[in-house]
Amino acid sequence: MEGVDILPHERSKKQFDVDAMKIVWAGSRQAFEVSDRMARLVASDPAFQKDNRSRLGRKELFKNTLRKATYAWKRIIELRLTEEEAGRLRFFVDEPAFTDLHWGMFVPAIKGQGTEEQQQKWLPLAYKMQIIGCYAQTELGHGSNVQGLETTATFDPDKDEFVIHSPTLTSSKWWPGGLGKVSTHAVVYARLITNGEEHGVHGFIVQLRSLDDHMPLPGITIGDIGMKFGNGAYNTMDNGVLTFDHVRIPRNQMLMRVFQVTREGKCVQSNVPRQLIYGTMVFVRQTIVADASSALSRAVCIATRYSAVRRQFGSQDGVETQVIDYKTQQNRLFPLLASAYAFRFVGEWLKWLYTDVTQRLQANDFSTLPEAHACTAGLKSLTTTATADAIEECRKLCGGHGYLCASGLPELFAVYVPACTYEGDNVVLLLQVARFLVKTVSQLGSGKEPIGTTAYLGRVQDLMQCHCEVQTAEDWLKPSVMLEAFEARSARMCVARAQNLSKFANPEDGFAELSADLVEAAVAHCQLIVVSKFFDKLQQDIPGNGVKQQLQNLCYIYALNLLHKHLGDFLSTGCITPKQASLANDQLRSLYSQVRPNAIALVDAFNYTDHYLGSVLGRYDGNVYPKLYEEAWKDPLNDSVLPDGYNEYIRPMLKQQLHNARL
Amino acid sequence: MEGVDILPHERSKKQFDVDAMKIVWAGSRQAFEVSDRMARLVASDPAFQKDNRSRLGRKELFKNTLRKATYAWKRIIELRLTEEEAGRLRFFVDEPAFTDLHWGMFVPAIKGQGTEEQQQKWLPLAYKMQIIGCYAQTELGHGSNVQGLETTATFDPDKDEFVIHSPTLTSSKWWPGGLGKVSTHAVVYARLITNGEEHGVHGFIVQLRSLDDHMPLPGITIGDIGMKFGNGAYNTMDNGVLTFDHVRIPRNQMLMRVFQVTREGKCVQSNVPRQLIYGTMVFVRQTIVADASSALSRAVCIATRYSAVRRQFGSQDGVETQVIDYKTQQNRLFPLLASAYAFRFVGEWLKWLYTDVTQRLQANDFSTLPEAHACTAGLKSLTTTATADAIEECRKLCGGHGYLCASGLPELFAVYVPACTYEGDNVVLLLQVARFLVKTVSQLGSGKEPIGTTAYLGRVQDLMQCHCEVQTAEDWLKPSVMLEAFEARSARMCVARAQNLSKFANPEDGFAELSADLVEAAVAHCQLIVVSKFFDKLQQDIPGNGVKQQLQNLCYIYALNLLHKHLGDFLSTGCITPKQASLANDQLRSLYSQVRPNAIALVDAFNYTDHYLGSVLGRYDGNVYPKLYEEAWKDPLNDSVLPDGYNEYIRPMLKQQLHNARL
Repeated sequence: MEGVDILPHERSKKQFDVDAMKIVWAGSRQAFEVSDRMARLVASDPAFQKDNRSRLGRKELFKNTLRKATYAWKRIIELRLTEEEAGRLRFFVDEPAFTDLHWGMFVPAIKGQGTEEQQQKWLPLAYKMQIIGCYAQTELGHGSNVQGLETTATFDPDKDEFVIHSPTLTSSKWWPGGLGKVSTHAVVYARLITNGEEHGVHGFIVQLRSLDDHMPLPGITIGDIGMKFGNGAYNTMDNGVLTFDHVRIPRNQMLMRVFQVTREGKCVQSNVPRQLIYGTMVFVRQTIVADASSALSRAVCIATRYSAVRRQFGSQDGVETQVIDYKTQQNRLFPLLASAYAFRFVGEWLKWLYTDVTQRLQANDFSTLPEAHACTAGLKSLTTTATADAIEECRKLCGGHGYLCASGLPELFAVYVPACTYEGDNVVLLLQVARFLVKTVSQLGSGKEPIGTTAYLGRVQDLMQCHCEVQTAEDWLKPSVMLEAFEARSARMCVARAQNLSKFANPEDGFAELSADLVEAAVAHCQLIVVSKFFDKLQQDIPGNGVKQQLQNLCYIYALNLLHKHLGDFLSTGCITPKQASLANDQLRSLYSQVRPNAIALVDAFNYTDHYLGSVLGRYDGNVYPKLYEEAWKDPLNDSVLPDGYNEYIRPMLKQQLHNARL
Repeated sequence: MEGVDILPHERSKKQFDVDAMKIVWAGSRQAFEVSDRMARLVASDPAFQKDNRSRLGRKELFKNTLRKATYAWKRIIELRLTEEEAGRLRFFVDEPAFTDLHWGMFVPAIKGQGTEEQQQKWLPLAYKMQIIGCYAQTELGHGSNVQGLETTATFDPDKDEFVIHSPTLTSSKWWPGGLGKVSTHAVVYARLITNGEEHGVHGFIVQLRSLDDHMPLPGITIGDIGMKFGNGAYNTMDNGVLTFDHVRIPRNQMLMRVFQVTREGKCVQSNVPRQLIYGTMVFVRQTIVADASSALSRAVCIATRYSAVRRQFGSQDGVETQVIDYKTQQNRLFPLLASAYAFRFVGEWLKWLYTDVTQRLQANDFSTLPEAHACTAGLKSLTTTATADAIEECRKLCGGHGYLCASGLPELFAVYVPACTYEGDNVVLLLQVARFLVKTVSQLGSGKEPIGTTAYLGRVQDLMQCHCEVQTAEDWLKPSVMLEAFEARSARMCVARAQNLSKFANPEDGFAELSADLVEAAVAHCQLIVVSKFFDKLQQDIPGNGVKQQLQNLCYIYALNLLHKHLGDFLSTGCITPKQASLANDQLRSLYSQVRPNAIALVDAFNYTDHYLGSVLGRYDGNVYPKLYEEAWKDPLNDSVLPDGYNEYIRPMLKQQLHNARL
C-alpha cells in the first residue's frame, strides 16, 4: 500500500467515533461548529494563502501580512461575525499581526485599567479600528522585572500633563508587537513621578503616529527591531523599538481605574481592588495554555500522519515498515499525542477557574487568588515548555524532511517558542509556584487549610507514609493508585525542600541557593494538576462510541510517561519501587499498542484543515511525496536553470580563471 | 557597573591561565596557532561579512554564498594554504556551501571507493575545482535505509555502459548539498543490475551539467528542494533534487575499489576488504563530534557572556543582579559549559581512535572494528542530540533577546539541528549501539573479553554487586567513585535489558518490543564513555596555572549533572541511594560557585572572534545594548518611515474606507 491509500486504510482501523471526539476536543458542539465554519472560510479563500511565506523577503512578507490582516478585518465586518467568530477567524488565518496586540493587549488594558470615562472615549475608536494600539511594556534592558522599567512619566502640574521620557538607551521600549510600523497608539508603562517622588509603574495611553499621515509625532522615535527566529514566523510582526524625548500627554491619558493622579498631582488609590489585575493574568495565561494545546496538537497531527506514510527498514513482502510501527517512534510520539489532549483539558478547566475567580472578585472574595495565580503561572510554564520541546521532537520524528519549510514544523517551532518567555519567563514563573508551595507547606497545621490544586497537601501526613500498592502492570490503570503516586511525589518533594530551606538562617538566601531544587518541586506539583484534571475529565459524561476508552488510554500514557521521565523523583522519595517502575513501563508499552490503530483518527479529531496545518507531510490525504516534489519547484532558485552568480563565480572557478576575477 | 566595564571586571576574577587553556581547547599549540590565524584572517576581511545574512531573500543569499565560497577558494590558492589551514578557513567563514560537499564527501568518496586509476583521473580535476562534485545518496522516499534505495544502474554489455535511471518518484535523489544549482558531477548511489540480477547498492561518478554552459545534461532533471529551517542557515546551500531518465555513463565510472563489474558484466569482489568503509565512517563521525563541541561552545560563549551583562531583579545599591549569579541560571548554563569541554575531549580521543583503527585495518586486524563502530555511532548520537538541545537552551537563557537573529542563536540552532539526522538518525544509531551491547553481554563468560569502551563489562560480576561508598558531598570528587557509579549503572542496565530480551521466543520481536528501553541502556553506556574520557584527559599532563583545577570542576559538573538528570537509572539499579543523590546535588551547587568567577574566562578560552560568534549578545566587549539598538535600524522595514502597504491597507482601515478597498 502506498501514498494516498495508506491513511484511508489507517482510518478504517479506528475503534471510536471520531465525530464525537471532535466535539470533545472543541469543548462543545457550538464551539466545534464555530471553529469548523471559520476554518473552512479561511481555507477556501485564496486571499489567506500562506504556503509562500517562507520564500518572501522581510518587506514583501510584512506587506502581505498587512493585506491579510486588513482583509480579515474587512471580512469580519462584512460577515458581521461575533467576537468569538472573529477570534477563531484570526486564529485560523494563522499569521502573527498587529491586530493580535490591538485586540489581545491594547483593548483589554484599557478595559481593565481604564476608568469608565476613559473606556467610553477610547474603546469605540479601538473597536472600529480608527486607532490601532499596542502594548509597550518591555524595554531593551528590562524584561521580566516590570518594577525595573526606566521610562518615566513626570507630572507637570502647570500644564496638567505627563511628560513621557526615555532617560537612557536601555529604557527604549523594545519588543512590543505592532509598534514598529503600524500602531497609532500605545499603552505605555512608565514610572510615575509627581512632585519629585516616584509612585511605581503605571500605564499611559500615548499617541505615537499622526492619524493624518502616519508619521511619528514629535519627540517619538520608532522603528522595527529586526529579524527574528525562523522563516515567516514572527517576521510578519513589526515588533518595535520606541524612545520618547519629553513627549507630553494630557493627564487624563493615564489609566486611572486603580490609581489616580489628581489635578494637583496628588496620588490617590481608588476603591477598585488592585487584585483585579490578577484576574486579567489568569485570563491571559488560560489563553496561553489553550494555545499550547493547539500548537502541540498541530505538530503531533503532522508527525503522526507522516509516521504512517513513511516507511523505513524492515520488510513484509518487500515493503518497508511504517515508522509509526516502531516502538521507539511510538515511545516518542504517543506521549506527545497524549500531552496535546492533556493540555486541552487542563486549559478547559482553566477557563472555568477564570470564571470562578472573576465571580469571587466581584463578590470581594480574594481568598482563592494566590492559589489561582500560582496554578496558572505553573501551568503556563509547564505547557509552553513542553510544547516548544514537543514541536521540535515532532520535527525530528519526521526525519530529514521535517527540516524543510514545506513540513510546516520549522515555522511552527519558530513562531511558538516565544511563549516560553513572554507573559512571564518559564523559570521565573516556576519559582513563584515554588514560593507559594513552600508557604503552603509552612502553614500546614496552622489551621489554614490548603485549597484548590493544593488541597492534597492537607493530607500530607498520609502522603508522607503511603505505599504504592501496584503489584501487576494492570494495577497502574487505577486512577486512585496513579493520583496517589503523583500526590505523594509532589508532597514529599515540597516537604523535603521546605525542610532544607529551614536550615538556612536567612530564608531568602536559602531560596536563592536551593532554587534549582525548588523548581523541580514546582514542576512535580504542576504535573499533578494536569494529571488530575485529565482524570476529572474522564469522570464527566463523555458520549460517543469508544471515545472514553481512547481518552483513558491517553490519560494513562501521559501519566506513565511522566512517571518514567521523572523516575528519580518517584524513587528518591520512596513513592514507588524499582519493580513498580518496571511494571509501569510494561503497561506503557501495552497502551501504545492500544493507541496504534487509533492514532490517525485521534489526530483527525483535531479537525484541522490542510490550510491550517500548512504541512505537506501532514496532508489529510497522505499524498506526501508527489506534493513535496511539486513544492520544491516553487523555490525562487528554480526560477532559472542557471543560478544568479554562475557567470561571476562558478564559471571562472571551473575555467581556472580566478586570478583575474573580481569577487 | 554597566555595559563595557562588566566583562573586563569579570575577567579580572579568573583563577587560571586563559592562554594555557586556549591551547588545551585547541588540542595543541600548533592547532591553536592555525585556528587563531585563520579566524583573524576571515574576521578582518570584509568579503566574509555575514551579519546581513538573515535579511537576505533566497536568491540574494545564495548568490552571496557563491561569491564567498569562490573568494575563499581564491584566497586559499593565493595564500598557498595547507589542507589544514584551508579547512580552518572554511570553518571560520561559517557558511554552508557547495564546497563543503565537494571537499567533505565527493573527494573522500573517490579516494575511499575509487580504484587507483579512477583516483588518478578524477582527483586532480577535483583538487583544482575544474569539476565540482556532490554526494547523491538519499532519495525522496529513502533516508536511513541505504539498502532501500531505488535508483538503478543497469549494465549494458553491448555498449559497456551503465544506464542510471530513476524508476519512481520516490527514487528521486533528494537532499544532496551542492546538487541543486552548482555541482557538475556527483557520486550517485544506485542498485547495480547486471544480467537481470541485483548486486546491492554502489557508487557511480555521473556528470550532471555541461562544463561549457552549466546546463543539465540530457536525461537529467535537477532543481533546488526549497527553503529549509531558519534565516540564512542552510538556505545558503543548494540541497537538490535529481532524477535520471536512462542516463548513460561509461563502465569505468562505477567506483570499483571494492567491487567490480567486468567488461562482460560479471561481478567480482576485489581483494580490498569491505571493512574499509567502516574506517571512513569512524572518520566522518569523529568530525561530527568535533563539530558538536564547536557549535555547543559557541552557544555557551554567547549565553555566558550575556548572562554576565544582563541584569534582572534583585538589588544591591539599586543595581539589579547579573543573571549569571542566579542558581537557576547556573544550573542550566554551567552543565552546558562542562559539556562543551567534555565533547571536545571525547572528540580528541575519537581522532586517536580513528588513527588506531586505520593502522589496524592496514595490518588486516579487524578485531576492534565492531566496538569502534558502535562507540562512534553512540557518541555521534549523544553529542549531536545534546548540542541541538543545548543551543536552544542557551537561546532561552538569553531571555527574549535570544529570539532576535542578532543574537546569532536562531541561526546557529537552525544550521546545527540536521546533525541529529544526517550520517545516521540518532535513534537508529543508538539502536545499533544497543544491539552491540546486548551481544557483548551475551558473550560474557564465553572467553571473548569485551574490549575498548566496553572493557568495563568484563567486570560485570563486581559491577552488579558494588556499593557506592559516598558518605559526604566531597566523596563525589573521587574519580574512582564516580566512574564506578557510571559503570555500574550502565552494566546493570545492559544486563537487565539482555535478561528481558531473553524472555522473548524470537529475539528480533523482543528487540522491537523493548527498543525504547534498549535505547536508554545505549545512552547510559555512551555517557560513561564521555565521562571516562574526561577523567582520562585529567590524567594527562596539563600545563598552565589553575587550568587542571578548572577542568576538574567541569568534569565533575558534567558527571554530576548527568547523574541528577538520569537519577531514575541510578536509583532503580541500586547503584546509589537517595541520600547519596542528595549529596551529589550539594556537591554540584558547590562546584557552580567555584566555576562562577571563572565562567567568562572559560568561554574566552574558546578563542572565538566576534565575527565567528556572530552575536551581538556574545560580543567580547560586552557592549550589548548600544549595538543591539544600532543593529535594529538595518532591517529593510526601517528603510522608510511609512511601511510599504500603508496606503493600500492601513490608511483605508483607519479612515473607515475598507468597503471600497480592493485587498
